[in-house]
Amino acid sequence: MRKVAVVGAGMTPFAEHFALGMKDLLPMAFAECAATVDKGLRPADLQAAWFGAMGTTDGPPSGVLADALGLPEIPVTHIENSCATGNDAVRNALFGIASGAVDVALVIGADKLRETAQKNLLGEWGMLMRDTAWDYQLGLFGPAGFALHVNRYLYESPATRAHLAMVAVKNHRHGARNPKARLRFEITLEQALQAPIVADPLGVYDCVPQSDGAAALVLAAEDVVDRYTDRPVWVRGVGLGLDSVMHQHKRDLTTFPATVRAARAAFAMAGLRPSDVDVAEVHDFFTGIELISYEDLGFADRFEAHKLLEAGVTSIGGSLPVNPSGGLKSKGHPPGATGVAQCVELFEQLRGTAVNQVDGARIGLAHNLGGPTAVSAVTILEGPH
Amino acid sequence: MRKVAVVGAGMTPFAEHFALGMKDLLPMAFAECAATVDKGLRPADLQAAWFGAMGTTDGPPSGVLADALGLPEIPVTHIENSCATGNDAVRNALFGIASGAVDVALVIGADKLRETAQKNLLGEWGMLMRDTAWDYQLGLFGPAGFALHVNRYLYESPATRAHLAMVAVKNHRHGARNPKARLRFEITLEQALQAPIVADPLGVYDCVPQSDGAAALVLAAEDVVDRYTDRPVWVRGVGLGLDSVMHQHKRDLTTFPATVRAARAAFAMAGLRPSDVDVAEVHDFFTGIELISYEDLGFADRFEAHKLLEAGVTSIGGSLPVNPSGGLKSKGHPPGATGVAQCVELFEQLRGTAVNQVDGARIGLAHNLGGPTAVSAVTILEGPH
Repeated sequence: MRKVAVVGAGMTPFAEHFALGMKDLLPMAFAECAATVDKGLRPADLQAAWFGAMGTTDGPPSGVLADALGLPEIPVTHIENSCATGNDAVRNALFGIASGAVDVALVIGADKLRETAQKNLLGEWGMLMRDTAWDYQLGLFGPAGFALHVNRYLYESPATRAHLAMVAVKNHRHGARNPKARLRFEITLEQALQAPIVADPLGVYDCVPQSDGAAALVLAAEDVVDRYTDRPVWVRGVGLGLDSVMHQHKRDLTTFPATVRAARAAFAMAGLRPSDVDVAEVHDFFTGIELISYEDLGFADRFEAHKLLEAGVTSIGGSLPVNPSGGLKSKGHPPGATGVAQCVELFEQLRGTAVNQVDGARIGLAHNLGGPTAVSAVTILEGPH
Repeated sequence: MRKVAVVGAGMTPFAEHFALGMKDLLPMAFAECAATVDKGLRPADLQAAWFGAMGTTDGPPSGVLADALGLPEIPVTHIENSCATGNDAVRNALFGIASGAVDVALVIGADKLRETAQKNLLGEWGMLMRDTAWDYQLGLFGPAGFALHVNRYLYESPATRAHLAMVAVKNHRHGARNPKARLRFEITLEQALQAPIVADPLGVYDCVPQSDGAAALVLAAEDVVDRYTDRPVWVRGVGLGLDSVMHQHKRDLTTFPATVRAARAAFAMAGLRPSDVDVAEVHDFFTGIELISYEDLGFADRFEAHKLLEAGVTSIGGSLPVNPSGGLKSKGHPPGATGVAQCVELFEQLRGTAVNQVDGARIGLAHNLGGPTAVSAVTILEGPH
């Protein structure tokens, strides 16, 4: 398979962009991305685009992207895959380049959640996020579905609500220094533990803030990468994993088979192991997901994820910092943009230019989980050094 | 690039399936598809799937597909690209296989339009089909937007409303014999011309019937194709083309640049010319689109499309039959399924087993246009003989 590299990466701040529409956010992310291409990028270099988004109220997503960037000459595929949308856009762009069909492609992800029309639309699009025949009728909206998993995990493992709070404290600490993050403040363990409950055991600080934002990457084939940079970030592995949508079909609530499958596929393609990873951006829509994902991704043995938090392994300064960007928890989560934005953070980490730089990071991993627990995607990147 | 073949193809009837949900239609299409794989298909052979759909009210589309088929082990990408959704799913699956990442993949497309909940959802999803800031506010819903194009085309070319009617008569005649078609009856030129006007110059018989349905293909890499069949149908070319969404940005209403771009890309990849095509399934959401598309696809010179109809070239028995399945016009149009179903028809045509068989057909072309005129996709297939 032809090798593929990230040669440019940029994003808007994740925020409540009430004054900006999708057509504003997309060119902002693209401009910042293009500016990071060391030897310059001409729009005519782009041969195709993959656009990750739950949707937009502006019109047909692929056409809206082409219009917003003034690039009607390039084909645009719109991909939706719940919270794994951004990573799956990267995966499909990689296939397009690796196949030989295109040499240079744009991957862009965006969503607007803080807008009235869009929120009405997302009310309908909530159907893209849950089983509507049973789960939703029984009250299993997003937080409640994940709360089932986290409660069972806390029951079966030695972990406690304090470990959930430690995830929140860590990611807020990281995010406080990230100018692109929405919630740029630190919190204490006590604040997290005493916050109002959303869906037991998940309190307010265990939950992600809804946000607007966009993120973009330029991917190039190994044959042409030298035209764009001398320090490419290689896409070593991509993996997508599924699982049953309905909760009554999930045999074990303490693990997410979709993540296990996605990670297995990505590590197999990369020829790497979990112990090779130096820095990771892990899905933390709810803090408990980050905890459980340490195990599903192979970073911790079963029911021992809490030990990583206690030892500070996953904090900046530890041996495997997780969510140095602040994660979804602090940075925000426009679903289509999130997986792409994780790769923007890893691009900076692996080139040594991140705000919360992980010293000597060479291998980075991005992970998301969505469609409550029915779909997951993992992306593994390798730096130039 | 590694060659990719279609080794199986099947579909549900396109109809008002009030009693069937998405989870019923998907396995129906898959079962019929699997049954056409000459040497048999084990579900475990499938390594990935691409699912084309505007959406579903059942839940996250990728997870709904995996659940409906009982295949949670394979990764599923959900693609939405307006009326070009099905062809773009084929295009991305081809990239996945050509890249070497997977050897055997499922492409499945489906949508349900005749269902109350789904129709409410599609009311919102209508935003995926038009510019909402200007066009829709000015009354340019689907038929009205296309009527602008067709009116201008009739003004500038020698074609008349009678030629639109000839498209409808032809496609109804073809569809009347197709057991999978929704409108299985013939109409006369007079009926078409005297039908109530929907958006001038488009009458009822110039418009597509809303329908429910699903269609599926199994694609395999050249390395493994012999395991499945000795008469593969090769995917020779795929093309995706974009254009501005808003009508005020369209410089010439008598041509669809998205189609021109998609066709150029597909023919270039295939190393073929329009004159090589023996049979085509062409987007006829409105009859005038088929007429204009003859020119955009290179089948007719500018403003001479009507001559093909007058000479019977595009009827069964002519030298380039178009829409032998009945087209969207007679067969129906669940957007996610349509492009895939066109390939099902071509699969049968190129293996000599179609209901309205085109004698000796070797090269087939499928085409769609959507997001009113902002996106088009073209797929070119070659038969085994």
